[in-house]
Amino acid sequence: MPDPIKWEDGSLYLLDQRRIPFEVEYLKCTNYQDVAEAIEKMIVRGAPAIGIAAAYGIVLASHGGLPMVKEAVSRLSKTRPTAVNLFWALEKMERAATDFHDATAKDPGLILKDHLLEVAVDIHEEERRIEKLIALHGQSIVPPNCQVLTHCNAGALATGGIGTALGVIRMAQKIGKAIKVYCDETRPLLQGARLSSWELWMDGLDVTVICDDMAAFLMKKGKVDLVIVGADRIASNGDTANKIGTYNLAVLCKYHGIPFYVAAPRSTIDCSIKDGEAVPIEERDPDEVRTVRGVKIFLEDIPAWNPAFDVTPGDLISGIITEAGILKAPYRESIETAMRIDVNFEDAHWADSYLKQGGSEDGGI
Amino acid sequence: MPDPIKWEDGSLYLLDQRRIPFEVEYLKCTNYQDVAEAIEKMIVRGAPAIGIAAAYGIVLASHGGLPMVKEAVSRLSKTRPTAVNLFWALEKMERAATDFHDATAKDPGLILKDHLLEVAVDIHEEERRIEKLIALHGQSIVPPNCQVLTHCNAGALATGGIGTALGVIRMAQKIGKAIKVYCDETRPLLQGARLSSWELWMDGLDVTVICDDMAAFLMKKGKVDLVIVGADRIASNGDTANKIGTYNLAVLCKYHGIPFYVAAPRSTIDCSIKDGEAVPIEERDPDEVRTVRGVKIFLEDIPAWNPAFDVTPGDLISGIITEAGILKAPYRESIETAMRIDVNFEDAHWADSYLKQGGSEDGGI
Repeated sequence: MPDPIKWEDGSLYLLDQRRIPFEVEYLKCTNYQDVAEAIEKMIVRGAPAIGIAAAYGIVLASHGGLPMVKEAVSRLSKTRPTAVNLFWALEKMERAATDFHDATAKDPGLILKDHLLEVAVDIHEEERRIEKLIALHGQSIVPPNCQVLTHCNAGALATGGIGTALGVIRMAQKIGKAIKVYCDETRPLLQGARLSSWELWMDGLDVTVICDDMAAFLMKKGKVDLVIVGADRIASNGDTANKIGTYNLAVLCKYHGIPFYVAAPRSTIDCSIKDGEAVPIEERDPDEVRTVRGVKIFLEDIPAWNPAFDVTPGDLISGIITEAGILKAPYRESIETAMRIDVNFEDAHWADSYLKQGGSEDGGI
Repeated sequence: MPDPIKWEDGSLYLLDQRRIPFEVEYLKCTNYQDVAEAIEKMIVRGAPAIGIAAAYGIVLASHGGLPMVKEAVSRLSKTRPTAVNLFWALEKMERAATDFHDATAKDPGLILKDHLLEVAVDIHEEERRIEKLIALHGQSIVPPNCQVLTHCNAGALATGGIGTALGVIRMAQKIGKAIKVYCDETRPLLQGARLSSWELWMDGLDVTVICDDMAAFLMKKGKVDLVIVGADRIASNGDTANKIGTYNLAVLCKYHGIPFYVAAPRSTIDCSIKDGEAVPIEERDPDEVRTVRGVKIFLEDIPAWNPAFDVTPGDLISGIITEAGILKAPYRESIETAMRIDVNFEDAHWADSYLKQGGSEDGGI
């Protein structure tokens, strides 16, 4: 499983996710502008991964000192509006730069860079540990025999670790549960068909791709016991913005009596907004709808609508699986409590040992 | 608007719907085997259109007399299992051939051909008149300002006339209603994106394509007042088999309080089956899911599921718009009554005059 984000020899390497699974190629980013463009073009995508890439983007601006760091924060924060992890990571990096003082330093630029790189690596490493805890907590809602449907890609490619929704699924399989996974293809950019199915198939999971319009019938036929998805921004009342099509699944789950879970790190929770109405929903180029992998599917004179995300109201969500445990309704209270919990990352070692049971040395990732 | 089915100089010409809207090409069928293959490959598709094409297919077998007609009926009935119009048309043609006796004929083959051609043309012509009546009856459920969402293609390309679901929409616009149409793209074969949007756009309607996973969010944003779809087979209790993804929309309509209507000729109703469970659902080649217009979207080693249809239970359907009026629940009763009604096709002339109000000489088709 190729790492979606690598820092090597002072440069950031991003796996070009637009080409997966047909080509495995990295884009080398040597300045923050490269990173900003990579986020806009969705070379790197997935809420946690965007945050991590942006953090490294700030490192690439550090040779210009605090002014260039602020410039980079401003540029990177304009790349994509919905996923809050981006803003969370940028704030963390800007604070680290602003708080950095070393009067004795001969070369302030260099030392600032070292300091910021440390913070970025911390964000990256912490994300990996968080995902292991999410996978651990998630086990309580995955029965021993389970048919799971997921949407988009909340996996290793989206996060830098084992994935959020797919992390829960991966661990379930590692500890011996009989898991069958269905991946919604997730039009327009096919993250489910191209990325999630590939990740899980490489890990030896029993995975089947369906078109997005087949999910309801799949449920009706009793082939879905559980839906787990990721999140791009969770409001303080539990309303959750995630890839377009997520809300569709939540409504279907409600109708069919199927549990619908969101798996996300707490950095996805935006306590500053009271509900989903306040989440800015990115609308992308209609040509993404008009084409599939570069091939036109209808005439360009015909309009298309292309919202990249939708909002699922908290009352359709059975629970939100975070590193601090599974949050349940009423979400205003459970989120407030969860944000105050000091997570014990020692638990992540338990996750490690579970993940290793599967046999592969690196825990399957 | 090119006619999807044309009979010219003793051959059947089928518009190759796989290539629309990029190429407008006809396939010439000179024998029933050609027609069977065209149905299997979905060169011609849409429940009423399949029935009409099959009827002409029988004409192409008539030179071989009754034995070859029976052979053709057997072959054509194995092409696609779900749409009942196919079996309805084949039965009608076989009965016409069986009942045909002309002891005085010198050349029984030729005369049988003339007779069967007459029956096939009747099926084709009657379908056109039926669709005008469906469009007329449908007006009572289309408000003067209306945002309609439709799925797949229940239009001129699917039927041979003005369309069923799209016929209702066309007439609404012709008589001055302000109509905005959203077309679900309808994966895997994109009939909504390729066919419905093209048909309606050529007729000057305000049409926008969305991906299938966007419908729920579109409804949540108040952009859908009504959903109308076609049907491939309606059971005697109102359960309706239609293109995969239809059931998804019906569940979404229920949740959002949006009316969900089916528009279909009575030849789509199968009184011999008691509910939707008995409808055979065609599963097609998974490669249709793995590709879009010939381009691979994920690896062929990864399984895919490809049901071509789903079943919407009658209790999710607000009404079934037929040439005999709009049927309402309880469907067992309303369908039984509707099947006995002797439809007055004079009413279709009213539809003609409405359709002509739009200005174009042929009523826009």
